[in-house]
Order: sequence, then structure tokens, then C-alpha cells
Amino acid sequence: MILDVAIRGGTVVTAADTMRCDVGIKDGRIVLLAEDITEANEVIDAAGKYVLPGGIDAHVHISQPSGEGIVMADDFETGTRSAALGGTTTILPFCLQEKGRSMREVLKEYHAKAEGECHVDVSFHMIISDPTEQLLGQDLPALVADGYTSFKIFMTYDDLRLNDRQILDVMAVARDTGALVMVHAENYDAIRFLTEQMEASGRTAPKYHATSRPIPVEREATHRAISLAEIADTPLVIVHVSNREAMEQIRWAQNKGLNVIGETCTQYLVLTADDLDGLGMEGAKYVCSPPPRDRDSQKACWEGLKTGAFTLFSSDHCPYRYDETGKLTPEGKTSFRWVPNGIPGVGARLPILFSEGVVKGRITMETFVAVTATNPAKTYGLYPRKGTIAVGADADITLWDADKRISLTHNDLQDGCDYTPYEGMEITGWPVLTMVRGKVVAREGALVGTKGHGVYLPRELSAHTRALA
Amino acid sequence: MILDVAIRGGTVVTAADTMRCDVGIKDGRIVLLAEDITEANEVIDAAGKYVLPGGIDAHVHISQPSGEGIVMADDFETGTRSAALGGTTTILPFCLQEKGRSMREVLKEYHAKAEGECHVDVSFHMIISDPTEQLLGQDLPALVADGYTSFKIFMTYDDLRLNDRQILDVMAVARDTGALVMVHAENYDAIRFLTEQMEASGRTAPKYHATSRPIPVEREATHRAISLAEIADTPLVIVHVSNREAMEQIRWAQNKGLNVIGETCTQYLVLTADDLDGLGMEGAKYVCSPPPRDRDSQKACWEGLKTGAFTLFSSDHCPYRYDETGKLTPEGKTSFRWVPNGIPGVGARLPILFSEGVVKGRITMETFVAVTATNPAKTYGLYPRKGTIAVGADADITLWDADKRISLTHNDLQDGCDYTPYEGMEITGWPVLTMVRGKVVAREGALVGTKGHGVYLPRELSAHTRALA
Amino acid sequence: MILDVAIRGGTVVTAADTMRCDVGIKDGRIVLLAEDITEANEVIDAAGKYVLPGGIDAHVHISQPSGEGIVMADDFETGTRSAALGGTTTILPFCLQEKGRSMREVLKEYHAKAEGECHVDVSFHMIISDPTEQLLGQDLPALVADGYTSFKIFMTYDDLRLNDRQILDVMAVARDTGALVMVHAENYDAIRFLTEQMEASGRTAPKYHATSRPIPVEREATHRAISLAEIADTPLVIVHVSNREAMEQIRWAQNKGLNVIGETCTQYLVLTADDLDGLGMEGAKYVCSPPPRDRDSQKACWEGLKTGAFTLFSSDHCPYRYDETGKLTPEGKTSFRWVPNGIPGVGARLPILFSEGVVKGRITMETFVAVTATNPAKTYGLYPRKGTIAVGADADITLWDADKRISLTHNDLQDGCDYTPYEGMEITGWPVLTMVRGKVVAREGALVGTKGHGVYLPRELSAHTRALA
Amino acid sequence: MILDVAIRGGTVVTAADTMRCDVGIKDGRIVLLAEDITEANEVIDAAGKYVLPGGIDAHVHISQPSGEGIVMADDFETGTRSAALGGTTTILPFCLQEKGRSMREVLKEYHAKAEGECHVDVSFHMIISDPTEQLLGQDLPALVADGYTSFKIFMTYDDLRLNDRQILDVMAVARDTGALVMVHAENYDAIRFLTEQMEASGRTAPKYHATSRPIPVEREATHRAISLAEIADTPLVIVHVSNREAMEQIRWAQNKGLNVIGETCTQYLVLTADDLDGLGMEGAKYVCSPPPRDRDSQKACWEGLKTGAFTLFSSDHCPYRYDETGKLTPEGKTSFRWVPNGIPGVGARLPILFSEGVVKGRITMETFVAVTATNPAKTYGLYPRKGTIAVGADADITLWDADKRISLTHNDLQDGCDYTPYEGMEITGWPVLTMVRGKVVAREGALVGTKGHGVYLPRELSAHTRALA
Repeated sequence: MILDVAIRGGTVVTAADTMRCDVGIKDGRIVLLAEDITEANEVIDAAGKYVLPGGIDAHVHISQPSGEGIVMADDFETGTRSAALGGTTTILPFCLQEKGRSMREVLKEYHAKAEGECHVDVSFHMIISDPTEQLLGQDLPALVADGYTSFKIFMTYDDLRLNDRQILDVMAVARDTGALVMVHAENYDAIRFLTEQMEASGRTAPKYHATSRPIPVEREATHRAISLAEIADTPLVIVHVSNREAMEQIRWAQNKGLNVIGETCTQYLVLTADDLDGLGMEGAKYVCSPPPRDRDSQKACWEGLKTGAFTLFSSDHCPYRYDETGKLTPEGKTSFRWVPNGIPGVGARLPILFSEGVVKGRITMETFVAVTATNPAKTYGLYPRKGTIAVGADADITLWDADKRISLTHNDLQDGCDYTPYEGMEITGWPVLTMVRGKVVAREGALVGTKGHGVYLPRELSAHTRALA
Repeated sequence: MILDVAIRGGTVVTAADTMRCDVGIKDGRIVLLAEDITEANEVIDAAGKYVLPGGIDAHVHISQPSGEGIVMADDFETGTRSAALGGTTTILPFCLQEKGRSMREVLKEYHAKAEGECHVDVSFHMIISDPTEQLLGQDLPALVADGYTSFKIFMTYDDLRLNDRQILDVMAVARDTGALVMVHAENYDAIRFLTEQMEASGRTAPKYHATSRPIPVEREATHRAISLAEIADTPLVIVHVSNREAMEQIRWAQNKGLNVIGETCTQYLVLTADDLDGLGMEGAKYVCSPPPRDRDSQKACWEGLKTGAFTLFSSDHCPYRYDETGKLTPEGKTSFRWVPNGIPGVGARLPILFSEGVVKGRITMETFVAVTATNPAKTYGLYPRKGTIAVGADADITLWDADKRISLTHNDLQDGCDYTPYEGMEITGWPVLTMVRGKVVAREGALVGTKGHGVYLPRELSAHTRALA
Repeated sequence: MILDVAIRGGTVVTAADTMRCDVGIKDGRIVLLAEDITEANEVIDAAGKYVLPGGIDAHVHISQPSGEGIVMADDFETGTRSAALGGTTTILPFCLQEKGRSMREVLKEYHAKAEGECHVDVSFHMIISDPTEQLLGQDLPALVADGYTSFKIFMTYDDLRLNDRQILDVMAVARDTGALVMVHAENYDAIRFLTEQMEASGRTAPKYHATSRPIPVEREATHRAISLAEIADTPLVIVHVSNREAMEQIRWAQNKGLNVIGETCTQYLVLTADDLDGLGMEGAKYVCSPPPRDRDSQKACWEGLKTGAFTLFSSDHCPYRYDETGKLTPEGKTSFRWVPNGIPGVGARLPILFSEGVVKGRITMETFVAVTATNPAKTYGLYPRKGTIAVGADADITLWDADKRISLTHNDLQDGCDYTPYEGMEITGWPVLTMVRGKVVAREGALVGTKGHGVYLPRELSAHTRALA
Repeated sequence: MILDVAIRGGTVVTAADTMRCDVGIKDGRIVLLAEDITEANEVIDAAGKYVLPGGIDAHVHISQPSGEGIVMADDFETGTRSAALGGTTTILPFCLQEKGRSMREVLKEYHAKAEGECHVDVSFHMIISDPTEQLLGQDLPALVADGYTSFKIFMTYDDLRLNDRQILDVMAVARDTGALVMVHAENYDAIRFLTEQMEASGRTAPKYHATSRPIPVEREATHRAISLAEIADTPLVIVHVSNREAMEQIRWAQNKGLNVIGETCTQYLVLTADDLDGLGMEGAKYVCSPPPRDRDSQKACWEGLKTGAFTLFSSDHCPYRYDETGKLTPEGKTSFRWVPNGIPGVGARLPILFSEGVVKGRITMETFVAVTATNPAKTYGLYPRKGTIAVGADADITLWDADKRISLTHNDLQDGCDYTPYEGMEITGWPVLTMVRGKVVAREGALVGTKGHGVYLPRELSAHTRALA
């Protein structure tokens, strides 16, 4: 057997191990780990670099319909381009079912949007906004069987939120099919109540977005979602957790023996609500939900990653331009209420976590790999094909230069936005090569592949539900 | 001044003190506490007895409309009769606003039902089921000013439950007016979800009532209610707490500095879910919500009383006969779902708490007085007129024979029911005389007053809200 | 019966009740509480004032031997003088057994020192530093029977600390006799370890006193003392708790069902470690153990008082002058290690708690009375003779002018020190008359009685141990 | 390069990954992981088997001096024999410094005992019982530099226990040198106190061993050890944790951000105190410290393994025969106090954890590998040479037959004891081949190597201290 590619001289890191070894690749898969691989059609020099499993960003919004006049800034081409440049080899965007629509149809549309456009691999979570009998009884079981094995539900947003009964009904389907439920946990009614108070008193600037959804709004919904999953007897992912109180709810549940999985995101580690308090509309660049909180919340999110309350780290990439198509719509200028919720981050995710986490001693290299690649793969049914460097796995690999320093600018990220909320951050450590199934797609900050190499991935059941199903 | 009545030779107990002294009464009020009162128009011998503030039962249902064909077993005459015999001198029943009705009108009806019928004093909590703009903006503020200073809201029951937004709106009115909000905390949607599962699988016997509303159903609603009160910035009473997990939510909130007040009831100290598992329909006698739980839950409720997580102890007296007018309606026989929720207990409350609590060393005499009389008076704006033995207070007094032993039967209670869930309990300690505003209304198990002595009490703001209002 | 004294027009407050009533006194005891007392040999006008049970300061050091050259600044005359002026009518100083001495002998000496010197009543805790077989087996049981019903033990200080086995042996005696154990909880070895580190690196200024005994030193000893009491099966008082972590240990123990009683002191509510960081030796004025901590610790101590983790509030009055006899000994100037530990406060205790607690809405009037008078009396076997305003109790009464404002100076306190650590505090509320057993001993800031009115009080068993003994 | 050995057809499991691949071995090290290895001097068929990193038992007592007349049942030959048969390829026994002796000398003796006798590799922890200045200041730093990188200290046992100051001094050396401290956490004084109570009342049977060291004895020492490590600012391993309360102390510390590492052992997962209550002296077979507890404690230990409170799983193998040389000495028959503490388990450790943990769904395969091999290697400075299956690591490999069922008898274990406390347990899953550095030492329940293959391993610093040193 002649190898297609050999990666030589690097230090391979998995979620458990760090080892000096070469990696041999054939037909897009890792077939060999060895001390010294001398023969291959192509040899990549990884001396002095980490050889990591490509990142899996399990929480990404791409080409998703937003409100009137608001356009999401990334399509599958630009979104996966930024992912590739940031060392991420698989993304999991959401397919949003608008009320009244068939989920199958919706999925077809997203498939059509993605087809031939992607630089890295993709798979889809489904957002369930209209849990009809048809959907619950017929469509979802069939879709799970077809490899769409995760449901996302919302406890807030006008058009998306489910009530508790609907949540329980969706969870019951998850219980029966082995699908995994993800929840956006914020209390809708409380946000409306507070938003109206804000608006009634003229507090409409972007910074009041944070005031309108304080920590108890998230903590309450977190506790409720956990309780509903306990009643429905199904595992649950709490996504994008932003603060200590919500984190402690998750830890409490885990200590009770419930299978609750926590995710946090880049913004909760490095931004605070103060970032929403810029001149004029500058704060709009940081409007996302839940909002960034304060220093203690950042600390709690780091602790959550370290102690296992959070096993997933994602970007919640939700790209809107800082122009009249996105953050600055005429309506958005009248109140934070109309500013689209979401900030970009698919490209910045790995460098920021590495620089702030590994370099500063907050987490180990192995934890870095676990929360950015291995755990997402296991949690969402992509493992062992994705998420690790092991014989038999896809050759999704990122070479990481731990010493490279940059002052981050939007130019480094090349997504469809016109800004990054992390502009100017000093970063140590950067992905210098990204390979998807054996093919180099980005190198030294430039795309080198062609769009369309990235493919759609049907998924197995989650490791968390498989034993139960 | 010649005293109307002197109580001689007893041991007076308040929420803080135990003292050997006589009590002098004039015009229905306590005017004198002294070592030795020799002159009075009437002298009551209390030698060897405790002289206690009359009990205040702050959670009682009387003459409340139930579903079709179901009749509440107590009107104001029978309900206050049982209260008087059980050592209770004030009760606070609920006035339930049916959807679409004016609260003022509803209150008039309850006043009409009570007028001239009561053996002990009464005041009214309002149950808000239809928080219209008119009610929130106009009627409630006026009613609070008129002395209706507490609102009860439900998170479950088809006709009563409010959604989170309605709860916040009611709390906002409470915040502005100084009214106190009480909440029945169980998650409606979860109960429906589980009830349908039970019924679908033929599990319809009374014992499945407990299965259909397990601890997480109550704990979740408790956490949510606390969170909404935190967001609305108002104190909150969690009524009838049944178990450790809900108790710990309250303690957690208190430790966070939130003003959350906990109440537990007789049934949660001495009954368990096993009591719902009787032959045939016998279990229906114990159907109430939340349901009694298990031994550890009982232990937790005692701990809550001891450590101050709970400062209120009530009966949640909700009387239905064990016949076709109450527990045994034709529909009720088909499923627990249609069995009316509620059990009687206004008369048994004090003896059971004394016997199981004070006699068994679980709580002190002072705590007994505090949770049965002083704290309810302070919490619901009746203090210092009610709830203690102090100069200036109403002469609402119960003489307690700590040594008297009885084997409890329904006959001791004389409410409108035809059973007591506590039948056969061995009780040590019994009220042998009950006085309301200086007049003896019950003595040695017999009514000695005439109905109509009991009057309606408008109330001040709660001690918990007064400082804020 | 003609009353000796009537206190007219005031508002009486107990640990549970607030009532407008007059107080009638005969032979030094309260014999009458009535709406209107018109006849008495002496009438005291209390209109517009609170009529409170005189304070009980259960943690006071007086005339206690210190190290060579160091003199305690108060004897029984000056110490009780300051107490009287500060509204306190009973103090409980410690009788310290030096190693090798008989406790009975030691007590005789303290009795001799106190005899004829006191302005307010006193009783004695015993400090056990040498738990010989004779002491444990013979002397302590006899002394408890004689009314010395509390033992204090130290976990630190060279000459005082007991090891765990000695602590268990003392606790076993307490278990058998019904005495109550109080513990000074700091880890001796850890303090020595850190002190040597400080000294080795030249960090000897007073502020390093705080650094040498950080929070874990106190938290550890608190947990250990609780555990030993759990093993010996006896109640326990943790005295002078200074911070959140130690408070949470106590709360945890209480929630576990252990009978652990917490005390905090004035300095932990209003001082911080920054106060030890003055110019030159100024910081020495604030050297006490445990040291004051930080703002969050203060907050925790307030929470502890509010939620019942702490039921006792004392001064830990331990008076040393800010001169060469006390804080400024030649040796003390060389290192914090030799600065005597302790600050004065018997006179300032009540005004500071009232002003910072009641006036600022952190605690209620009833809690103020409970933690400063009623609970100490119950905890240390003085109740019902002391600690409340009730018929039959000693007429130990303080009239409190809630509106009086002063800027505190040492001159207001008249203890034997030459400074107060609370100099310049703005205080609202002040005791304007102090009565001990019916006799006014201080009025408007001046002593009006004669020394020797204060007597020694043998004590009953604690309310916490009585049921067990 | 021609491989020495190829393991073909198995499923390799690491602490993070499960992969179907072959393993290539050369010169005792893993040099190749590949899908299909066809050429090697020796081929081992692993089809249908798990290929696991050999177990590392980091808590083992071998040839350790015990009290007079008591002989430890295993020397290095028998101890490592049982380890090899049980799938363990490295053990870490303790070298116990008797008071007054030089540690270097002691180590020499253990080296001499081990030399040429071992079937698997060994390394040594040092037990410090006499922390003289010479030892702390000179010897320990030199020994750490020589690869003895862990210190064990005892908080109990007459001849071993250190006081708090000694513990802090040892920890300070660890802080400075990067050594890792392990602690046996039980309160000596409390055990003596209770033991004397037991003996005084004639409770001397083996079962009173458990009564004499109840949970608070362990919890207290756990909290204290954590606090001392916090003060000394050094990581800490709490060994052989037996119950929920101690586990929660560890979790609390971890959540506070302290680097506290927890270990639990076989006996705490499957035995209870009831096992000590056998006929006659049968209970002596189960006497170890801490003692096994109850079902809830077992549950807590499983939770600890699952949630990461415990990252180490060991045997605490401490072998005494059930004859007059061990458990049944004449003195031991007079009181539990003289029964040697310790039970055998080096051979049974992996099968029991696999059968009760992995097979019953309590932990995953990856967690099994992590806690039995990878984490011990990382914690004690053997990684990456030991503890995983990775290119470059020693070829320490166990083939695991997950389907093999046996009813465990002592005969399966072949240690020096004459019983196993796990006699009769039904086990699913068994090691069928054990390889140390490329050489098969046990196969199908029989030793196939020769003693002396096992070598001594000097160690690097722990992963927990390396960053700090």
C-alpha cells in the first residue's frame, strides 16, 4: 500500500493522548500512525507543530432566514471558508422549520443551498418550531432513521419558542428514536416583560439587550429544560451557557445523575455586557443571546470547561453584517429589540480557545481537543469517523503552530461579515494547515482547495442516547 | 378598670418566650399580663395549661365552587366550627375569581356567604385567574387599599393557571401595591403529559394521581416562580411544599438573599404516597396536590420548619366528602384525573403538629407558635392585632392541654366532611378552650359560642412587603 | 401591690413581638405589662423610645492574664461600666485556666476580681486549657452542677490550644453533663507555618497578622470542630465567625441536622483587613483573631444573622490600650506575632448593630433583640430570667432612642482602653437609659448607679443541651 | 523494520478513543498503529477482544513491615504475579520510612526486595513518617530529582501519622520540588476516642472496626487535608475515598478551583460494612481503612468515577492471610483494634470494575481505561511511557475478553493470600493476555513469563505539578 499523504514530524494530540508520531493517510482516511513514515505520495512537514483532529463546530447558523430585510451574512461557501481557515473541518448548521412547513422540505432546501458550495464537511441539526402530530409521529422518526439525529428547540423568540408541553412531546420522540435534544434556554415571557419595561422607559440602546435578559432569565429556563428532560427521561444538551448560575444548574443535574450536556461559546469566555455599551450603535456588534455577562461569568465558563460541566465548545456563529442588511436596519436603530441576535465566530473559535485557554494554562491540550472536536463528534453521532486522530478515522486534520502570534483582524477570518467582535485580540497559536478527508483545504491563511470538497454527513445516534435507544 | 376576663395560672407562650403569667382581657383585647390577676368578671383557670395565641390557618378553602357535580363540604359555619374546635381563631380562605368575572363581585359573594356564619374570624386571599388590564390596572390596586392584601396564583389546573407573563404582570402589581403573592407551584404541562401517559396505559386508580405529578413537577415550578419573583423584584410565598427538592430551592433562594417564604402543611409531615394506594377508591381520600411523597420528604419538611426554610404551617383544608358529591363522583371513579384535589384538615392541624413536632422533640413550643400563629399574622398583615399574646392584641387564645391523649376520629373535628385522612392517629396534646376576641367559642370539644361571632378582617400589608411599598 | 417602677409610653420589643405597652417593676422583676400603668413609686417616661431587654454580651474578656508585660485594659469596674453605657445589662467573661491550675481556684480569683466591682450582672464561661483526668472526671461535672455551664476551648494559641483528642474528651464531658462547648476555631499549625513564612520574608507589620491566618485556616478548624462535635454527639457554638466560607460550614451542618450554633461579632460586620494596613503601627489597633476580612465576608456575616446561621451577636471585647502596656509593647513592634490579639467593643456592640443593621434594613428589630439578648440568654442558661421583657423576668431594660445620631468617639464608651476601632462611625440610634434588675445604672451617657449593683449569675443548662441531659 | 510482535484484529481503546486497529511492536515499544499489519515475528490474534493499555495499580502494599508477628502476604514475586494475571502491567507499592531511618536506606531495601522478582514493572511511592529537617531539606529534594516523585502521608495510625504542621512542611517540599502528595485521610484522635469507647463497652468484634471510624472521621480529615494543601498551595491526592460525604468534599474543592485528585478502590464499590459482620472472625477478612460503608456510599463512589471527582481507581492491595500470620493473630482475636488493616485486590481490580462498571453501564470503556491506566500514569509521572496505547509508548497491553464469565475464586488471583474478599462474585469480562514491554507475561490465567522481566521505573513529575514546578 502506498500512502497518499504522510504528515511527518508532528505531535499528535487526541482527547486523551499527546504523542510524537507520523500520520499516514490513504483514500481520505487515517490508516497508519507510526514513529517514522518515510514513503508517501505527498509528505507534509509538521515538525514543531501540533497535529490535531480538525475542529467540529456543532453550533453554527448559515443561510438561515431572518426577519424582513435582515440577511444572514454567510452562505455555505463563505461560512465553510472561514471554518477551514480557522482549523475547523466539520460544521453543524441548523435547518429551521418555519411554522406550517414540512421538515423534509426544509431540509431539502438547505441541502440545495449547501450542495457543491462547501469547503468543509457539514451535517444538519433540525430546529423544530411546529411540532405537529405529523411531524412528531411520522416525519421525525423517519428523519432520525435517515441520519438527522438531533433536534433543537427554543424556549424564546416569537416564531420559534415551544411551550412546555410541546417540549415534552418533542423529548418523547427523542426518547423513542434516540435523537438528541438541544435547547436554547431563555424564558420568553420574562424577556418580553423586561423588554417592554425597557422600551417604556426609553432604554432602547443596544446595551439594554443585556439588561432585558438577565441571568435569572437563562437560569430559570435551564432549570426548566433540565426538569422536562428528567420527566421525559431523555438526555439533553443545554447550548451556549453564559454564566455561573446556569452552569451550576447543569452541574447540579449531572451530580443528580441526569444526563445533561453543557455547551459554552467563545463570546462567554472573552466578552462582557460592557461590550454592548459602545458609542452610538457600536454595541450592536455584540448583540447575541444569551448576552455576554461579566468577569465572574467568564470565570465560571472556564471552570465549566475544566470540570466537565461543559463538554462542548462552539461558536454559535450567527453572522450579520454591521450595515443596513444586518445589525443596522432602520428598525434595529429604534430599539435593541429589533437588532438581530447573533455574532460571527466560526473562524475565531479555535484560536481564541487555544490562546486564552491552553496558552494561559486554564485548560490542557487534551481538553482543547476534547471540547472542540472529540466530544462534539461523540455527542452528535459523527464519531469515530470524525473528531479524533485514530486509525480508521477520516483524515480531518489541523496543523497548529502554537507559537504563532497575531493581532486578530476580520481579514484573518474571511467570513461574510464586515467585522469581528474579537477585533484586535492578541492571539498566540494559529492553524497553519487544514485538511479535510486527506485533502488540504487551507494553508497559511489561504484557501487552497475548491469549494464542493466538503460533503454532507448523515449521522449515527449520539453516544449519549445510543445505549438507551 | 375591671377586667372582663382573667386567664389564671397558665404558661403563656409566644414565638419567642415562655412565661408563667396571667392574662387580663377587656373589650376583647389583651390589656394586662401580670404574675397574679385576682379580679375579673370571669376567671378561667389555666393551671397546668399552655396559653397560646389562637391558631391562624392561612390556607383554607371554604364554599369554593368546584367542577360540575362536585360540592365543597364546608361552608363558613362548618369550616369555622372545626377551626374553633381545633384551636384556630382566624382562617384565611380563598376567593376564587372565575374567568371573566369582576373580582369585586366575587368578593361580595364570599362576604355574603360568610356574613353571620362564622365562629372564628376570617379574612380573604384573592385567587387571580383572569388578569385583565382592568383587574391589574384598576381593581387590584383598589382592593389592596381596601385590605385584600394577598394574591394567590396557580401554575396548574385547567381553569386557574396563569402563564409566566401573566404571573409577572400580577407580580408587578404586587410590587407596586405592596400586596403579597402566593403561588401554587406545579408545572401544568408536565402534569398533563404524564396524566395522558397514565391514562393511555390504563393507570387510572387514585394512586396514579401521585405518579402523575412527581417531585420534579413541583421543583421545576418552584424554581420558576422564584425566578419570576426575582425578575419582578417582589417577595413570594411558595405554598404547600411537599418535599426536599422543592424545600432546597426555597433555601437556595433565601441564601441568595431573595425574600421567598415557604409554607408546608400537615399532610406532608405525616402522609405518604402509599396512602393513595388503598383498596378500591380508598386512596381518593388522600388525593391532594402536591401529593404526599415519602419518608425522606417528610423529614425534609420537618427540617424546613426547624431551619426556617418554612415559616408558615397551614392545613390547605380543602374539604370533599367521601361520597358521590365529592371524592366518589361517577367521573372520578373512571380516573384519578377527575377526583377533586384536596383533603380536609383545618381542625387537625394544630394537634398533629404539636403531637408529632413538639412532643417528639422535632420543634420547640416557640416554633410551634411562630409557624401556626405569629408568622401567618405577620406575613399576611394581621399582626400585631392577631398572632401573639401581647398587650394590645386581640384576645384570641387557645388553652392547650399538653398531656391530653386521644386517638383521633373524624368526630373530633366536626367539619363538613365524612372522614378525616388522619383517622386513628394517636395524638398527645389538645386544645381544651378556644377564645376569639375575649369570648370563649369552644370548650372541651364542644362549641359554646354562637355563629356570627367571627368577623371579617381587612388586612394591612404584609411585613414582607411593607418596607418596600 | 405598689410598683417600684413603671416605664410608660414606650414600645416594647421582644424577639418575636413589638407592642405599645407599659412595664411595671417590683423587687427588680417585671411583674406587669399593661396598656396604661398609672401608679408607681418611680415613673420613667419612655414615650417615643423602644423598651428593649438589656443586651447580653456573651463573649467578653475582662481582667484576663495576657503575656508578659501585656495588661488587659479592663477590670470588672471599667468593663461593666462601658457595657452599662452601651445598653448591655449582663456580660459573660471568660475564666481562663492556666495549665497546671485547678479550675475551681481560677474561678475563685475571677469571683474575687468581680465581687463588688460590677455595674451590670456577670456570669462566667470557663476556658479549659488543661483537661486533666481530675478536671474532666471530677471538677467539671461538679462545676456544671454549680452553674458554670459552658466550656470554651481553643484550637489555636500556644498556651491554650487543645488537640483533637482533648477536644473530644471535653465534649464527652459536655455530653454527659449538659454543658455547652464553645470553640475558637483556627488551625494553630497552619498559623505557625504561615507566620514563620511571613517573618522569614520580613513581613512583620500589623497587616500581616491577617495574611498569617487566612480564611481557610478558620474554615478548616470550623469544619473540624463541627465534625468532632458530631462524633461526640454534642451541640457546639462556633464563636466569632468572620467570613462566608466558615458561615457556610455552619449552615451546612445545620442543614445536616447537627446542632451547631454560630456567633458573629461587630468587627466582622464593619471592619476589613484593610483596617490593619495603617501608617506605622496604627494597624495594631485592629489586630484580633480571626482578623476582619473583606466586603464579601461582611455581607456573608449579615446574611448569617438574617438567615439564622448565626443566632448570637457578641463583641468579643478584648481590651488592650494603644500604648506600651498593650498594642505597642517593644516586642509587638518587632512583629505582628507579638501584638496582643483582641479589640474592645462591649460598649459599641448594640449601637453599631442597630445603626448598620436595623436602620439600614438588613435585620428586623426582633432579630436585633433575639441575637443580642434573647438567644444569648437561652443559649447560655440565663433564660427566662434574662434576655426578654416578660412577666417574671428580671427588669433588665434598655431604653433605645432610635433617632439619636452621634459620631462615635472613644469618649462615648468609657472602657479602659484609649481608643475605639470604630472611632468616627456615624451612628443612628443610641441607648439612653440602662436598668439592671429595676435599678437605673446609666442614663444619657452617664453612669448613675454605684458599682457593686451587678451580681454574679449561676446558670442553668443551655436550652440546646437541656433536652439531651 | 521488522516488527517483533503484531496484535491483530482487536479493538484498541484509549482514554478517549475506541478504534479497530492492529498494533505493531518493536523493542518493547509500540511503533505502529495500522488497519492491517501483516508481517511480524510474532502475531497475536486479538479478534473479538479489546486491546487495552495494561492496568496501572497506583496503590499497592508489598513486603511492607507490619506489627509484630504480622506478615504481609505478598512479596514482589507473588504480588506482581497476581497483578499480571489480573491485567495490570505496572504497580506502585509504597516504601515506608520507619521513624528514625533514612529514606534513602529504606528505598534501597525495597529495591533489593524487588530486584529480579517482578513479573510486571514497578515504581515506588515514599511514605514519610519522620519528616526531619534532613529529610525535608536535603533528602527529599534529591530523591525527587532521582525519580521518586510522590510522597504519601498518613493522618492516622500510631507510627505513621503526621500532625498538621508536619503535613504542611511536607507539602511545602512538594510545592518546591514538584512532588505530588498523597494522603490517607482519617482523624487519628477521633478513631482512638471511639475505639476506646468500643473496647470499654466490650464491642471488640471485627464489625466494630467500621463503627470506630465512621464517615465523619474520614470526611473531617479529607476537608483538613484539602485545606492544608490550599494553604501550602500544592496539588493533593486523596486516596481510597469510601463515601459520599468525603467525595463531596473533593468535588467542592475541585469546584473552588483547587487541584484535588480523588481515588477510590474496588472495596468501596462492591463491599459494605455488613461484610464485616460475619460469623466469628470472618469479618476480619474485610477489615481495611477506611472501612466499606453502605449502598449509598457505593453509589456515591460510582458517581465520583463518572463525574470526575475521582480520576484514579486502585486496589489498595494490602495482603494479609486469614491465618495466625495475618488476620487471626492472637491479639487480633481480642479486638478489632489489633486486626491488621488491609485486604488484597491487585488481581481482582480490573475485572470487578469492568464487570460492575462497564458491563452494567455505569461507566464507559474509555473511563475504564482512563481511571485504571491513563490517569494513574499521568498523575504519577509515568506518562506517556505508560498508561496508553500510542505510538512511542511501552507495549504494556492487556487483551480483554468482554464476554468471558467466571465466578471469582481466590484461585484465579494467585496472590500470597489464602482468600479473596470477592470470593464468589459473578464476573463478566476477563484479561486473557498480559504483555509487558512487548513480552507476554500471562496468558489465559497462567503466568508465561519469568520473574525478573518487570523492572523498576524512575518517574517524571506528575502532570498535576509539572506546570507549577
